[in-house]
Amino acid sequence: MIKLQRPEGTRDYLPEVAEKKRYIEDKLHNLFKGWGYEEIITPTFEFYDILSAGTEGLQTKMYNFFDRKGQILALRPEMTASIARVAATKLKDSPLPLRLSYQSNVFRYTSPRAGQYREFYQAGVELLGITSPMGDAEVIAMAAKAFEESGLKNFKIDIGDVDYFTGIMKAAKLEEEEQIAIRQALSQRNVVELEKLLTETELTEKQKEAILSVQELRGRVEVIEKAKDLVDNQESLESLINLEEVYRNLELLGVSEYICIDLSVVRNFNYYTGIVFEGYTKDLGYTICGGGRYDRLVSKFGYSVPATGFAIGIDRLLLSLEKQDYNFPLIKDKILVLIDPAYKEEGFALAEELRGKDKQVEIEIFNRELEDVIEYIDSKGLELKVVGEELEAKVKTLVGGKE
Amino acid sequence: MIKLQRPEGTRDYLPEVAEKKRYIEDKLHNLFKGWGYEEIITPTFEFYDILSAGTEGLQTKMYNFFDRKGQILALRPEMTASIARVAATKLKDSPLPLRLSYQSNVFRYTSPRAGQYREFYQAGVELLGITSPMGDAEVIAMAAKAFEESGLKNFKIDIGDVDYFTGIMKAAKLEEEEQIAIRQALSQRNVVELEKLLTETELTEKQKEAILSVQELRGRVEVIEKAKDLVDNQESLESLINLEEVYRNLELLGVSEYICIDLSVVRNFNYYTGIVFEGYTKDLGYTICGGGRYDRLVSKFGYSVPATGFAIGIDRLLLSLEKQDYNFPLIKDKILVLIDPAYKEEGFALAEELRGKDKQVEIEIFNRELEDVIEYIDSKGLELKVVGEELEAKVKTLVGGKE
Repeated sequence: MIKLQRPEGTRDYLPEVAEKKRYIEDKLHNLFKGWGYEEIITPTFEFYDILSAGTEGLQTKMYNFFDRKGQILALRPEMTASIARVAATKLKDSPLPLRLSYQSNVFRYTSPRAGQYREFYQAGVELLGITSPMGDAEVIAMAAKAFEESGLKNFKIDIGDVDYFTGIMKAAKLEEEEQIAIRQALSQRNVVELEKLLTETELTEKQKEAILSVQELRGRVEVIEKAKDLVDNQESLESLINLEEVYRNLELLGVSEYICIDLSVVRNFNYYTGIVFEGYTKDLGYTICGGGRYDRLVSKFGYSVPATGFAIGIDRLLLSLEKQDYNFPLIKDKILVLIDPAYKEEGFALAEELRGKDKQVEIEIFNRELEDVIEYIDSKGLELKVVGEELEAKVKTLVGGKE
Repeated sequence: MIKLQRPEGTRDYLPEVAEKKRYIEDKLHNLFKGWGYEEIITPTFEFYDILSAGTEGLQTKMYNFFDRKGQILALRPEMTASIARVAATKLKDSPLPLRLSYQSNVFRYTSPRAGQYREFYQAGVELLGITSPMGDAEVIAMAAKAFEESGLKNFKIDIGDVDYFTGIMKAAKLEEEEQIAIRQALSQRNVVELEKLLTETELTEKQKEAILSVQELRGRVEVIEKAKDLVDNQESLESLINLEEVYRNLELLGVSEYICIDLSVVRNFNYYTGIVFEGYTKDLGYTICGGGRYDRLVSKFGYSVPATGFAIGIDRLLLSLEKQDYNFPLIKDKILVLIDPAYKEEGFALAEELRGKDKQVEIEIFNRELEDVIEYIDSKGLELKVVGEELEAKVKTLVGGKE
């Protein structure tokens, strides 16, 4: 016999979970559409070079393989590179802005943890062609609405701006390699590593403190004022003005209650260039959504266009909702129409009539023990409708006798 | 710059096509659910041994690769093996019948042709635990309803029974290898190959004629009577009685107008054991859906349960509908709310109000040339709503001046 295992880190979604997944994905799709974002679908695998272009942090986690011509393919580890490829080819002549959305599975060879899989599902949007803070505010507001519409409670979205931190590091004349390592340590909130890296630099104590202080710049909008006092380089100051403008727009968009300013949010993909954000609830130990501005990524594909967007982890959102005991509104009457073989036509007609009323209807031509049928409907929570008088009488006797 | 190619045989679905795809998939999902079929989702890749168990014909077409432990994985070339694995593990103790559905991409390394891709989408159902002809009739009726609900015209579903042909071949004492080769030639309607294969056997002329005659056993239900006269082995005769019973049920289920009896339909997967069927329209040179009974497949995974099901090729169905100039009912009002920066709050409120009325609403804070905005809405077919009196007056002047 064949070994019945699944590859490590993969998942089967049984009916109950699959139904919840579809419910959430439909909600998000409708939200994205309502804001003018149109879905695109790209191939599950692409040439390795395309996929590795945007995602320095993910190259070692990709599933790579060869096609029969010896070309290196990979399963996509995220969607932004593929969207950038499409924007830079088939959509290059479309008028801007471009509002695009996706619902896709992505693949990463990581150590499996609870709620984290090697194949997982993302829903996201990309807004191309808008540099203003309003663009960032729009996608952040949509992330908040996405959580709201899914029924998630007690969520927060932390917003930062990588230019603030980059400004500090540039002013301190750190090498690019040092900057990347420090940013990564910060994004992972790895304080030990961060302090170790800073020790290895030739920064003054004051410069080191400025970098470490980023971890404490977290709170409501007043954090921005506090941060202004801590820096005097132009890039950092401009990023704070930008962040403030984004925040003001979020207030007007009615989602500021969910927003937290957090200048330590720098994300671990190097392609982000300005605003970055992460959404989470306390019910999970990791973020449920992440995004930000990536103004230089699409130009790697030959199309110079600013962009901002986010991806929501569907598996993580599902897990959060389950942890919050969310009551998914999936009520649909489920019925078994049990048909006496002599009354098939009537039975089929009744089933069709009930389906027309949005019921979920199984049909069964009666040819096994009635006890088995009753056990079946009980175990599945089905309502029973019987077609054929004689059979109906039998059912009544049996069920009556049970009571 | 990175080369912007996609791997051969893959596809980007731009918004218009992606929307049609989603429309069809939703229709099918609702149909399947209405008949009591519940969706399951399995991993995109599995161990090679699982995937190759059911699909002798597809092993050479699979995308295989190694995980980092050296185990052979493959992208699924079809869904039935994965469903069988789940049924034989997590659903083994569920009461029968099991009604399962899926909407999945599958992967085959084939020569790309028009409308045929190396990654393509399928929607399908599997009914486990019912041996009676009513089970086959149920899934065939659902295939017909699936085409009906999608809006497809002029489609047919050809039904055969592989046991009829197998009975003839067994009676002629053909080796199993010969049987497989002959069945494959027949499934591909490769008459030259079929005649060549028969020449190489030691069959009598009469036996050869019986095999070749299968190609002409095609038409309405009277074909069954004709076929009965041509054989005298028990297996073939029983299969015809079974087929007749399936057909009678399809009449009662109200779909017989779409049905054609065709005893040359034998499908090219060896796992089929009884009724087989194929759906198609004249608008395409290949089938859009295929299915049948596979009573011995799931037992390869250690669970002896009869099964029947089908898969619809979504890309092929989409192409057929486009060839038929089907008018997809995707009407949704698309609006651009253009907002004077001084009236953001009012503008955002209007956008939300319109979204609540199921409109598709983009927002734009006015900060570019009005001519560019007009060009944008014209090219995308958007209705324009302006927030802010002054801006509204400007728009009127511009648009009025144009007329």
